[in-house]
Formats: sequence, structure tokens, C-alpha cells
Amino acid sequence: MFVTHLECPKCKKTYESEQIIQLCECGAPLIVRYDLKKVAASVTKQDLLSRPATLWRYKELLPVRDEKNVVSLGEGMTPLCRMDRLGAKKGFKNLYMKDEGIIPTGTFKARGATVGVSRAKELGIDTLAMPTNGNAGGSWAAYCAAAGIRSCIIMPQDAPDINRREVAITGADVYLVDGLISDAGKIVARAVQKYGWFDASTLKEPYRIEGKKTMGLELAEQFGWDVPDVILYPTGGGVGIIGIYKALRELQEMGWIGEKMPRLVAVQASGCAPIVKAWEEGRKESDFWEGAHTLAFGITVPKALGDFLVLDAVYKTDGCAISIDDDEVLAAQKELAELEGDFICPEGAATFAAAEKLLKKGWIRPEEKVVALNTGTGLKYPDTVNVDIPVMAPSDDL
Amino acid sequence: MFVTHLECPKCKKTYESEQIIQLCECGAPLIVRYDLKKVAASVTKQDLLSRPATLWRYKELLPVRDEKNVVSLGEGMTPLCRMDRLGAKKGFKNLYMKDEGIIPTGTFKARGATVGVSRAKELGIDTLAMPTNGNAGGSWAAYCAAAGIRSCIIMPQDAPDINRREVAITGADVYLVDGLISDAGKIVARAVQKYGWFDASTLKEPYRIEGKKTMGLELAEQFGWDVPDVILYPTGGGVGIIGIYKALRELQEMGWIGEKMPRLVAVQASGCAPIVKAWEEGRKESDFWEGAHTLAFGITVPKALGDFLVLDAVYKTDGCAISIDDDEVLAAQKELAELEGDFICPEGAATFAAAEKLLKKGWIRPEEKVVALNTGTGLKYPDTVNVDIPVMAPSDDL
Repeated sequence: MFVTHLECPKCKKTYESEQIIQLCECGAPLIVRYDLKKVAASVTKQDLLSRPATLWRYKELLPVRDEKNVVSLGEGMTPLCRMDRLGAKKGFKNLYMKDEGIIPTGTFKARGATVGVSRAKELGIDTLAMPTNGNAGGSWAAYCAAAGIRSCIIMPQDAPDINRREVAITGADVYLVDGLISDAGKIVARAVQKYGWFDASTLKEPYRIEGKKTMGLELAEQFGWDVPDVILYPTGGGVGIIGIYKALRELQEMGWIGEKMPRLVAVQASGCAPIVKAWEEGRKESDFWEGAHTLAFGITVPKALGDFLVLDAVYKTDGCAISIDDDEVLAAQKELAELEGDFICPEGAATFAAAEKLLKKGWIRPEEKVVALNTGTGLKYPDTVNVDIPVMAPSDDL
Repeated sequence: MFVTHLECPKCKKTYESEQIIQLCECGAPLIVRYDLKKVAASVTKQDLLSRPATLWRYKELLPVRDEKNVVSLGEGMTPLCRMDRLGAKKGFKNLYMKDEGIIPTGTFKARGATVGVSRAKELGIDTLAMPTNGNAGGSWAAYCAAAGIRSCIIMPQDAPDINRREVAITGADVYLVDGLISDAGKIVARAVQKYGWFDASTLKEPYRIEGKKTMGLELAEQFGWDVPDVILYPTGGGVGIIGIYKALRELQEMGWIGEKMPRLVAVQASGCAPIVKAWEEGRKESDFWEGAHTLAFGITVPKALGDFLVLDAVYKTDGCAISIDDDEVLAAQKELAELEGDFICPEGAATFAAAEKLLKKGWIRPEEKVVALNTGTGLKYPDTVNVDIPVMAPSDDL
């Protein structure tokens, strides 16, 4: 393993990595650091080609010491698809989708879970707990089951039915709370305190980012060790955008990609857009968003623990932040299914709506390589589709 | 393209491939034949490594002339996962799952659809129709949308809600029939006759098998151009088992794998087991199964058009056929989720139950390499999971 230490991006304090740890003393999330020179000397791009098409092909850039601790369901190397029919209609010459619906548990949460749970196993954690709006719980419960780690998952009572079921079937301890995810988070915090469990809440442990960063590694490999011009990312907790930025910086430091960085776009829902507001005001952190509500429940995060890291990635790459209304989200989702055949989640659809707006504004140029990141399959969001289907008798003709 | 012609496996009549065609004159499905010597001279195993991780990496063994006609959503190269925790419990030393849940539209139907629709596009088909119990319709509607081909999908009124929605969002013409899939099939047949549409029913066109055969190509590549000892396949229409057998024979003829063939096992539900009955009686074709019923609705096929091909593949590989009760299916599904973290479909779960039975019987030996083929994600089968989750107040403690 090439991990050297953990580092606080806020106060710069460093920590030894071979210990069970949550946040920095200052309350900020911890970041994993590697000896990138050694990584570059140990593996070549060519070496990757004969490895399986999972995110573990980048094992030298992942924080697991012993491969026997890797808990994998075959996740990663999700398709990068050209969206030529949609692109032609909207005026893009090079529009792509990175489709994170094609992954175990049906959402990109699997990336954080495979790395987070593998590392938890390696460090000897026997029980972890987390609050979830649904999809993260589904992923972490699955990987914990595979690891033989007990998981305790708490979700709001209005969490989607499919998430309850996917967690329940793994044998996880699952609870509903008559409240919000913040209430679930408080119950988790009390239980962690009381029983000594590990808290796997977003960014409260250092390894979920490492899983999410593999989206950036894959994009670089899929573009032939180059980067696109723009990446649009649906931003709730923002772990993915933080991870993609980190991945590309690491590849630069290794000399695997050049100086160019893609402009990173944080896409939020109009009903919960704290990062957008902070970016518009030129600030480095966001304020708590009161009364958050959007049908894209995966990005309903009123105040992200890593907001300063998200904003930093946006500023450093000359990116931007933009919000999308729910009706634009649904329209984009439908249009994509009709033109490209992809049934994607509302969070992913928001990135297509955002790309269109930014093209119209001139912020994106028609010939640029643009990647919209879809974070999950529409199959987990059946209620986003209206159905009114005619019923025939067997003797009827079309 | 390396296709030479189409061939009837029953009466051996041959057909020119560059035409729109359905069945042989004798009523049997048509099979695609290639100049395998030329394929072997045109591509090497090494060439594949730098191609994307989709089933189109095997383009020389697929029936599309011009790559611009390929309609892809990034399907294929699904994970092959070791099932070590389940294996240890049951007594397998080398148990694997090929996970076809990790694919666009969430089931292996995407393989037949990507190849079938690409070829339909190439041949200039503008409208196709098909009856479906659900998942095939979901896949074909998606790929047709991406191809700009109009699709007309008819499913029974009791088809799962998720399938109606995934078809509807693509803009397909979708109808429910107050009857069975056989009633839907008759409506399709009348409409095809009346309007000159293409009939995409199972095995009524030659190209779906070619898509499904890529499971066999991938397994060979994933095992390092070797084959496992046993492959268990949930068998309804049986296109997959026919395809896997065809793929391995083609690879043998190309010299890419050796003489060894895996023993192919057709797994059916006790409530609909025509192939098992035929195999037990040593017959070459099956009888219509009256009163078919199982919760594994994807394999509820009372009489498959390709039954003689399925049975041939089983006999030629010294395989077998076995049926599983619905309660065994649900138990296997739950056990897999608890031990391995995978939420799979009931059809896939049946193959694990079958493997266990065959191990107990001594038909499978503990050290053999055994592949259970899971055909879809459990996310499309929420009703297979019972949920009874405690509700907490925000002030409650765990």
C-alpha cells in the first residue's frame, strides 16, 4: 500500500493512517495521502489493461494494505457513453454520460462503500452505523454484509420503499425515524458514543472519498489519459466532486495526465442549493439551507461537511455552480430516455439540464467535451415516471 | 463483418443474411454463421485488452456490418465474482457468480436487445413489436429509443409495475393485455401481419442469440481463455444457454479455447419445468407445461421455441436439468444477500439453489469451478423482500 498518512485539509494536522479514526480534531474531514512517486514507479498504464474492469484496477491509488480485505461486488469501470442524439438536438458536438447506474446497488454510492467497507474490515471494525436518505444505506449495508461487518442503518420514514427493501434483505439492522436525515444522524451519533461503533456518515471517515475518486481515474483512462473540458456533477454531500478533483491532481502529480483540468460544475436543485448560493457570493463555505426540498432526494443536503472542499474544486478549475428546478429535471430525464434509451435518476438528469443552460449562456462551447455524470439508475425512482397505459382484451387488435 | 449466412438448425436450410427475416420456412429459429477462420486471422486476444469493457469488444463475432449502426448503452463485461462466503458455507471451493444485474436496464435482456436492435437498424427496420412479461420489453424499448426505431410493447396486465414504467419513459407504444403473454403474442402476430412490422418475439429473429452468446465469450475471457466446469443458467426461453453453447463452440473452432466444455445446467422453477421433464425422459423436445406458475416470472415459459436447442446443449455437454421450488428460491436469494451482499433476482437465485442440490447429490464435486448465472438485479423485484422495520421517534435511542 502506498498510503503515507491522513491529512486535514483545513488545519493541516496529519495523522497516522493505521488506526481507526473519524474526523480531524478541528472537526474537518480527513484526506488520504499517498507516496505518488512510488505509485508512479510501481505501475504503468499498460499494466491496467489486463486487470478486471472494476475500480480495484487502480489498487495502487486505493487505501487497502492487503488484497484479502477487498470487499468487491464487481463495481466500477462504468460506461462512458456518447450522447449523440441528445447532443445533436441541443447543440453539443461532444456530449458524454458517465453512467453510474450500471454498478452494484444501482448507484455510485457503491464506490464509497466498497473502499470504505474494505478499509473498515482491514482496520478490524465490527459494527458501523450510518444515517441515510436511502441509496448510501443500500450500498453500505450490501458491502457490510459481504464483509461480515454488522451495519446499523437509520433512514427517514419517507425514504423510498426500494431502499428499505435493499437494506432489509442484507440482514442489516435497519430503523426508520419519524423525522429527517438529520434526526437519523443524531440517533447514530448517540449510538456510536454509547456502543463504540464506527460512524460511517458522509465524510466522517476518510475512505469514502477514495472510492468516489475512482470516477475521476476512470474518466481519465476512458478518455485515453486525457481529460474532458467540463464535468457536471449532481452535488449533495459533494464527495464525488471532491474525489474527482483529488484523483486528477494525483494523476497529474504522477505524470499520467497533463496540466489541463476539466472545469468542474456543481449542479444542485433549486430547492436545496447552498453551494450555488455560496459560489454566487464568492464565498468559501456554505450556509445551512432552510426548508430544503427537491424530488432529487439524493442531493437534498442543506449543509455539507465538505462544502469548502467542493467550492475549492470549483474555484480551482474555473468551474461554476448552478441550480435546476424539479420540472426541468423531470423534462431532462424524459428527453434522455426518449432519445438515448437511458432511464436515469433525477440527480443525474439535473446535470443534463445544467449542461443545456450553460451551453445557452455560452459558458460551454459547442465543440467542448462535456461529461454529465449520472449517479444512479432510474429503476430506483419508479415514481418519477407517469404511466397511463391502455388495457386491451385478448381479442382486441392494435 | 464476418457473417456468412443464416442457417436453420432443424432442417439445415440456409439463408442469405442481408435481408429482413424472421423464422425458417420450417418454423424453427435461424442461427447466424461466421467465417471463423477469418475471424481468427483478424483479431487476437491481446487486441481485446485495449477495447472498452462492453460486449462490443467481440465485434468480429457479432452480426453488425457497419459500426455506425451499433446501438450501445455500455452493456456487457459484467462482473464475475467469487462467492467465497456462500461457498464456504455450502461446501464449494470455487463458486462464482456472473452478475447480469450490473447492466443497462438491470437484466441480461440488454444483451439481446443491443445486438438485435443494432442489426434491426442496419437492416432498415422502422417499427418492431414484441410481447413481454416485462424485462425484455424494458430492454428492447430502451435500445429502440436509442436507435430511433419505433417499438410497440405488449405485456400482461399483471406485469410488474417497474417494467411498465421503464417502457413508458422511453416513449414506446405500450399496451397491457387482460390475459397472458401468449395473448400478447397473438396480438403482436396480428399487428405484424397487418402493418408489416418486425416481430421481435424470442427467437423469432436471428440476432438476439448473438447478443446473449456474449455471456459465453466473456466467461471464457474472464477465466483467462479457459472455461469453468459447470455453468448453471435459469432457463425460460433458453436463449442464453443456447448462446453460451454457441459462443464456446465458436471459440473452440477459432482455437481460442481448448476441447473442454463446461457442463451446462438448465435450471427451471418447479411450477414451470418443461425442459426438466423432457430431459428426465431423455427427449429432444419439450411439451407445453399446463398451468405454469412461479414467482420467478422471467422463466415462466411453458414451451420454448428453442427447446430442442437447449436440450441439445445440455446433452452435448453432459449437463443436466433441474427444478427448484419457489420457497427454495427465496431462501437462496436471502442467503446470498446476507453472505455476499448481492441483491439478485429470483431467477438468478434459483441457480444457487440448484448448485447446492447438485453438490449434495455428488453431481458437482466440491473443487469444481461452478458459475451461477444471475440474470438480473433484485431492484426490479422489490416484492421478493419482506420488510417489517421498526419506527423510532427522533428522541429514541438505539
